[in-house]
Amino acid sequence: MNMLRKLGVRVDKLHVVLCLACFLLCLILVYDERSGKSALEFNVYENGNGHSNKDLVFYNRTVPLLWIGGVPRSGTTLARAMLDAHPDIRCGEETRVIPRILGMHTKTIMSSLEMSRLTEAHIDERLLREALASYILTIIAGHGDPAPLLCNKDPFAIRSMSHIRKMFPNSKFIMMIRDGRSVSHSIISRHITIKGFDIKSHLGCLKDWNRAIGTMWEACKSSGPEICLPVYYERLVLDPKPQMERILKFIGIKWDDRVIHHEQAIGVKGGISLSKKEPSTNQVNKAVNQEALSKWYGEIPASTLNQLKKEAPMLKRLGYDTDQSPPDYNKLLNPLAEKTLNL
Amino acid sequence: MNMLRKLGVRVDKLHVVLCLACFLLCLILVYDERSGKSALEFNVYENGNGHSNKDLVFYNRTVPLLWIGGVPRSGTTLARAMLDAHPDIRCGEETRVIPRILGMHTKTIMSSLEMSRLTEAHIDERLLREALASYILTIIAGHGDPAPLLCNKDPFAIRSMSHIRKMFPNSKFIMMIRDGRSVSHSIISRHITIKGFDIKSHLGCLKDWNRAIGTMWEACKSSGPEICLPVYYERLVLDPKPQMERILKFIGIKWDDRVIHHEQAIGVKGGISLSKKEPSTNQVNKAVNQEALSKWYGEIPASTLNQLKKEAPMLKRLGYDTDQSPPDYNKLLNPLAEKTLNL
Repeated sequence: MNMLRKLGVRVDKLHVVLCLACFLLCLILVYDERSGKSALEFNVYENGNGHSNKDLVFYNRTVPLLWIGGVPRSGTTLARAMLDAHPDIRCGEETRVIPRILGMHTKTIMSSLEMSRLTEAHIDERLLREALASYILTIIAGHGDPAPLLCNKDPFAIRSMSHIRKMFPNSKFIMMIRDGRSVSHSIISRHITIKGFDIKSHLGCLKDWNRAIGTMWEACKSSGPEICLPVYYERLVLDPKPQMERILKFIGIKWDDRVIHHEQAIGVKGGISLSKKEPSTNQVNKAVNQEALSKWYGEIPASTLNQLKKEAPMLKRLGYDTDQSPPDYNKLLNPLAEKTLNL
Repeated sequence: MNMLRKLGVRVDKLHVVLCLACFLLCLILVYDERSGKSALEFNVYENGNGHSNKDLVFYNRTVPLLWIGGVPRSGTTLARAMLDAHPDIRCGEETRVIPRILGMHTKTIMSSLEMSRLTEAHIDERLLREALASYILTIIAGHGDPAPLLCNKDPFAIRSMSHIRKMFPNSKFIMMIRDGRSVSHSIISRHITIKGFDIKSHLGCLKDWNRAIGTMWEACKSSGPEICLPVYYERLVLDPKPQMERILKFIGIKWDDRVIHHEQAIGVKGGISLSKKEPSTNQVNKAVNQEALSKWYGEIPASTLNQLKKEAPMLKRLGYDTDQSPPDYNKLLNPLAEKTLNL
């Protein structure tokens, strides 16, 4: 709750009245001809299902935000569901539009030709970020209930970690990590389309996994342990409690047993809302289990497995045993492994 | 000024103090656990060059906005420059990012598969519009000085007229119209790349012009004369004053002689800011003139000109003489023509 205390206060009726007054004042369009150079932009939205004014909730860019990311099929949905079970946290479904607009933004600022044109139009990186931040905050705040800690789980948003931190300075990130062989098996056996991923061959898919996780890992490590926390899917399902304690400590939210019994919070008010259209929904409907750990055994060609040291070096770097097949994931729980991996 | 009076008030010092108080109050993150369903999102930005708090300017979605559109190379830059010369109006350079994000939005809401996924994530058209509106307003307000009437000139934004009106209910539109033969000649001779336009052959280019202007014209007509005003480039350069009077009456801004001497307002504070990277800049640098009317004469193959009734029927529909080459554009000034064209 530390992140929250810095920025948020519970309000009494007087505060609500004052805020409503402020809100009405803000609705007046004010301009001052002497002024030159600045503006305050804001907007209001309400969900469709009606509410009284005292239900208004205010957010701004200093809001603490949690971003859960990783290569798709790495337990990001499980992690967000477990956190959603906590009454003080709301993640919600994948928004899909947030990584899309982040991608558009990255493409724009990476093009020096485009940026030179925008600069001529008095649109600099900072203004683009302001616009992007309003868009993203509107979506995050609007697609679910308010909560002390809002969270976003669009797996690839984490690739824009540095932009996100410039927009929302109180952001923290959880990076989910899972054995690339499991990820590849999950993608290929379930025919999950992922932009930039070979979904036909395990070798191609593992190379794409290696590239994607490598970039994320570098970004996560360089942000530092206060900002980005790596979480192994295998450790989470083998021994959920210490992992969830570690996560809650990282985000400064007090322990609540509900996070390790997330299946009981599905569809409950203040609990977990799941999308029928996300492929992981039928898996996170159940209690935490270890079924998915071993599904890839015997499903990946030996010729692919023999090339992993060269083609997917991130496996070894992240502590996965590529010599032994199947590997013993319990080794990842070893305190010595934790130290080696610097977790 | 009618549009403005409805929504804007000049403020005295007390108002400024109250608004600052409101602003500071808003900066507190407030949440109410009893609440469920709504949120107010706002953000603040300041230009880089410093300012005091009393220079804060507030806008919201009821701000009156003017949108200047049309097929590129139809005098949209001239029209916005003439309006920018008015002290109460600020258009500014093409933002480029606004039509891009509008296009992304249109693509999203036109896909029923995508919308079904978003609906499962509690992201409906209304929330998407809220997010988009925050983005657009941040860009429009932020890329130039504040003014009683803000205006956007990204030629193709007008294609999203119906979405824009849902986002910003006090929007008005000016649709620039120019002889497709001039447009085609301008595009091809200047090698202007326009998405979806054939820039190699006049016949292809005129077909693309016909399609684009046809859609815009239908949208403009169906919005009604209070919302969308068609303005002929030829009429504007042949007889600027009555056209500018007509435009200012439409947007409810009082006459100012500076609009017909825009060349004197270039680079002047509160006047016209031009981009070195826009192809029209070297043309609107000069006083209004008729040079560009006849440049296409003799430059378009006879075989193309002979097919215009069939391939570019919008020419005739908009009152352009395709039988006579070169046509007499003065006919467009005839009061009878005005009546026929329903201008």
